[in-house]
Amino acid sequence: MTSTLIVTGSPSSSSRTHRLAGLLRDKLTALDVPSSILDLRTLPAEDLLHARFDAPRIVEALGQVAAASSVVFATPVYKAAYSGLLKTFLDILPQFGLRDKVVFPLATGGTFAHVLAVDYALRPVLSSLDPLHVVSGLFVLDKHILVQDDGSVTLDSEFAPRFDLTIGSFAQAIRRAGLLHPPASHGALAAVG
Amino acid sequence: MTSTLIVTGSPSSSSRTHRLAGLLRDKLTALDVPSSILDLRTLPAEDLLHARFDAPRIVEALGQVAAASSVVFATPVYKAAYSGLLKTFLDILPQFGLRDKVVFPLATGGTFAHVLAVDYALRPVLSSLDPLHVVSGLFVLDKHILVQDDGSVTLDSEFAPRFDLTIGSFAQAIRRAGLLHPPASHGALAAVG
Amino acid sequence: MTSTLIVTGSPSSSSRTHRLAGLLRDKLTALDVPSSILDLRTLPAEDLLHARFDAPRIVEALGQVAAASSVVFATPVYKAAYSGLLKTFLDILPQFGLRDKVVFPLATGGTFAHVLAVDYALRPVLSSLDPLHVVSGLFVLDKHILVQDDGSVTLDSEFAPRFDLTIGSFAQAIRRAGLLHPPASHGALAAVG
Amino acid sequence: MTSTLIVTGSPSSSSRTHRLAGLLRDKLTALDVPSSILDLRTLPAEDLLHARFDAPRIVEALGQVAAASSVVFATPVYKAAYSGLLKTFLDILPQFGLRDKVVFPLATGGTFAHVLAVDYALRPVLSSLDPLHVVSGLFVLDKHILVQDDGSVTLDSEFAPRFDLTIGSFAQAIRRAGLLHPPASHGALAAVG
Repeated sequence: MTSTLIVTGSPSSSSRTHRLAGLLRDKLTALDVPSSILDLRTLPAEDLLHARFDAPRIVEALGQVAAASSVVFATPVYKAAYSGLLKTFLDILPQFGLRDKVVFPLATGGTFAHVLAVDYALRPVLSSLDPLHVVSGLFVLDKHILVQDDGSVTLDSEFAPRFDLTIGSFAQAIRRAGLLHPPASHGALAAVG
Repeated sequence: MTSTLIVTGSPSSSSRTHRLAGLLRDKLTALDVPSSILDLRTLPAEDLLHARFDAPRIVEALGQVAAASSVVFATPVYKAAYSGLLKTFLDILPQFGLRDKVVFPLATGGTFAHVLAVDYALRPVLSSLDPLHVVSGLFVLDKHILVQDDGSVTLDSEFAPRFDLTIGSFAQAIRRAGLLHPPASHGALAAVG
Repeated sequence: MTSTLIVTGSPSSSSRTHRLAGLLRDKLTALDVPSSILDLRTLPAEDLLHARFDAPRIVEALGQVAAASSVVFATPVYKAAYSGLLKTFLDILPQFGLRDKVVFPLATGGTFAHVLAVDYALRPVLSSLDPLHVVSGLFVLDKHILVQDDGSVTLDSEFAPRFDLTIGSFAQAIRRAGLLHPPASHGALAAVG
Repeated sequence: MTSTLIVTGSPSSSSRTHRLAGLLRDKLTALDVPSSILDLRTLPAEDLLHARFDAPRIVEALGQVAAASSVVFATPVYKAAYSGLLKTFLDILPQFGLRDKVVFPLATGGTFAHVLAVDYALRPVLSSLDPLHVVSGLFVLDKHILVQDDGSVTLDSEFAPRFDLTIGSFAQAIRRAGLLHPPASHGALAAVG
């Protein structure tokens, strides 16, 4: 049994990043990868900012990360890096809090000038948590994210194929990782076991 | 008139980083550079985490940065980078929020393995805010910070000279910057005005 | 059939980095992972520095990378980053020159203060080449590398277990990658096919 | 007396980066800042790649850096970072080879996606050389650089003002630095001496 946790770190209540996480969850479901979303904005702010490791909601959130076999970290790019909100959560993860996990860095931003923030800012921090595999990250320009009337989002036709391709690689990496950690019984690879 | 704001971004109430800021303030005072401390831990957590630019305490804190001619950003190193608490504050600064200011990055940590976090993580974010001059940063190992009975700190004799040297360079950079922005009338350079 | 190319980028003829590559090759052989070494110092300097993609030895070296299913990039840390020699070679790789490959970043240095150069400097550059998987990197302090009378090296007993563990993870990642790319028939996993 | 050295690190003989350096030299001259260009491509390739500190042309080039009070490092962006050619030269500079100098990082590239390479890749390396002041860097898109019939370049009208502004700030930083290091006798500040 494997599952993916999608952690979203936008401070905004009407966040494109958070909505994109919903689309990602649907895509993963279609690929037979069960996933759930942890919106950091819903955690008690003071517990998070003051690093109260033993506050109930923090304990629960840390447990969700520990239980997941793969984790997506989704963040808007502010000031050439990940959001402070996301970092407050990464700060309270255990030293090797991503060990044996497959990790997918996902960023959104208003300008292409921030693309490298994924690999120069977010990836080194994730690497410090000793993950099994940080797959290729993705930077999504705000203009590619189309908000629908019901609040959900779609991607425009220019960017959608790239998004699908990257998620496919992530799903494949999850399967590969699972193969060597029995019980391995996912999708197209089930016949291998 | 110039003044230095020392922003501290440790989530801990008994923080070495925050105590070191007190020592820094005393040193700057001795160099005739007036300074004050802004402890981000005292700001309302939810206003900060949810980026409420118009909350009274946030407005006040942003005003302190705007009014300062130089700013120190002091942070513990967590997960190979600055603290999430510090980043939540940097996130709400205006796009060019450090324009015309002299900036000093100051980090504390338990291991030398984190030294490069100053130049690879903190400095690029500060640079994105269009500062006049980000001076050489300083990384202080926890073991060099000696907590006294009254809660204040001193630095051990091995590290103290380096600390003094770096602060001296910072003070000099502040004076140099002031020189071209009349009225320049500080300390040893007062005769210039 | 898979093979690993170990690219070494030290400008010194008596390099610890290059000697460490010899030890790594022996370890990989013991794990049933065939490997060979490409010492960038042996390439014609002007062809490399002037980016002559069509010079015979450059063509040959690029072919070695293209043919490998996994690549180690070994470099001393100079000035807080990988060597210029290594970067001249990375510069002439095709835009997606590490696609579908498993990559292992390996650095040597004289001080722990340079550890983060692996994740903040080398890894982002490798990531830009679209690798399948950049595994956890390794930073080896010069003092752990013991040069023997015959010029080969061993690692001291403090560091050797960490080296073996990291190489084991690299070998495992190579096997996992191969599994989804038939024919997959390596080592302990042969029974899976 | 102050002087600026413009170091160019493009491996190409028809480099936009190198041509841009010529324009920069003319602009600095117009601002009363004497400057000269060091094209790393003209140094003996093997001496550079094998780090022969005592080769005559290398000794001479290192002397040019040592004698300059300010240095521009101009590089194309390849693989999300500075060129290998530039890094081979930075590698042979002394440990504190930029001490007391004002430094200007200048990069060229084909896509905005590489903008952050200036602050995340080049600036940390320059910072490790203990400079007095690394001013705001500049990233110039290839498309803004217009090559004239005589091989010189101009900038298009969209980008030219930004280039002039940045060079003006650099010149101002050079003057400020000179002020506190006698003999200080530049331009509008001559009265200070």
